[in-house]
Amino acid sequence: MVGHSSHKDDLLKRLRRIEGQIRGLQRMVEQDAYCIDVLTQVSAASSALQSFALRLLDQHVECCVRDAIAEGGQEAGAKIREANQAIARLVRS
Amino acid sequence: MVGHSSHKDDLLKRLRRIEGQIRGLQRMVEQDAYCIDVLTQVSAASSALQSFALRLLDQHVECCVRDAIAEGGQEAGAKIREANQAIARLVRS
Amino acid sequence: MVGHSSHKDDLLKRLRRIEGQIRGLQRMVEQDAYCIDVLTQVSAASSALQSFALRLLDQHVECCVRDAIAEGGQEAGAKIREANQAIARLVRS
Amino acid sequence: MVGHSSHKDDLLKRLRRIEGQIRGLQRMVEQDAYCIDVLTQVSAASSALQSFALRLLDQHVECCVRDAIAEGGQEAGAKIREANQAIARLVRS
Repeated sequence: MVGHSSHKDDLLKRLRRIEGQIRGLQRMVEQDAYCIDVLTQVSAASSALQSFALRLLDQHVECCVRDAIAEGGQEAGAKIREANQAIARLVRS
Repeated sequence: MVGHSSHKDDLLKRLRRIEGQIRGLQRMVEQDAYCIDVLTQVSAASSALQSFALRLLDQHVECCVRDAIAEGGQEAGAKIREANQAIARLVRS
Repeated sequence: MVGHSSHKDDLLKRLRRIEGQIRGLQRMVEQDAYCIDVLTQVSAASSALQSFALRLLDQHVECCVRDAIAEGGQEAGAKIREANQAIARLVRS
Repeated sequence: MVGHSSHKDDLLKRLRRIEGQIRGLQRMVEQDAYCIDVLTQVSAASSALQSFALRLLDQHVECCVRDAIAEGGQEAGAKIREANQAIARLVRS
């Protein structure tokens, strides 16, 4: 759950921009654009996707993990482990 | 230039699948999916984008760079430098 | 602060292994090893360094961030922001 | 084979600096430095290792791969595939 609706709007705006970048890549391939130019555009889309993930993770830690810890109990430990695993997947992907 | 049309079809198929993943992410955010599930899906899309880039780079080195080197002359050095810069951007992104 | 001394021992053991890998790389370069073999060894050292970072981050969130949140107050927000920034640096490096 | 001895000196100097960074990390952990400061230092060492790899790859493509392609024959294809696999490992690590 993403929380505040302004956060949700920001996330959706980012995803729509990334979708546009992916469609731009399709046009480049269809029109036989030069490989290196396509690769430059791929790097831009990758960075945008990474920034999206970091923003989402920020919000997750700020809301869900923080609430679970503040409430205490077993839930807190589980939330922390879950977040740490998501971070590891991001760092490695 | 991507070269063989079977290569081009493969690249376009990959991009359409990534576009589908990005649209899936939008639906997840719209429907308030759990952050960690969204992040897992982001990692999948990132990996797919990375594989696309590596496939494209393979083909570029195999065709364009190879031809330039085989022909010799200054063009070869320029092509190699250009490919190395694209690799550095990929490794760092 | 790394916390438990068993954690500290584990972290130090990992770093000594990485130091050994870096010295191994120096020997390879000195003895004119084949580039591709050197690069394979670099990838291994990079992965080991990444695993070290993830382990350290785990422990940091598990101890420091968790304690700060449990205590509440402004400190908690600062710790979360600090951890999120460290995660962003890791994901981007 | 790294080729020119100035290249070799540059590579060794980079590795010795990275070894120093890893030893610095050990001192930080031994002296219970703050986790976030340790992580910042890890990011610096990771970036240095990545730059080392990119430099080595540059030199490999510039010498070995280029020579193999200029000579032609089957060797060229094998060298290109080998370099592409090394690049993929780097991008993914």
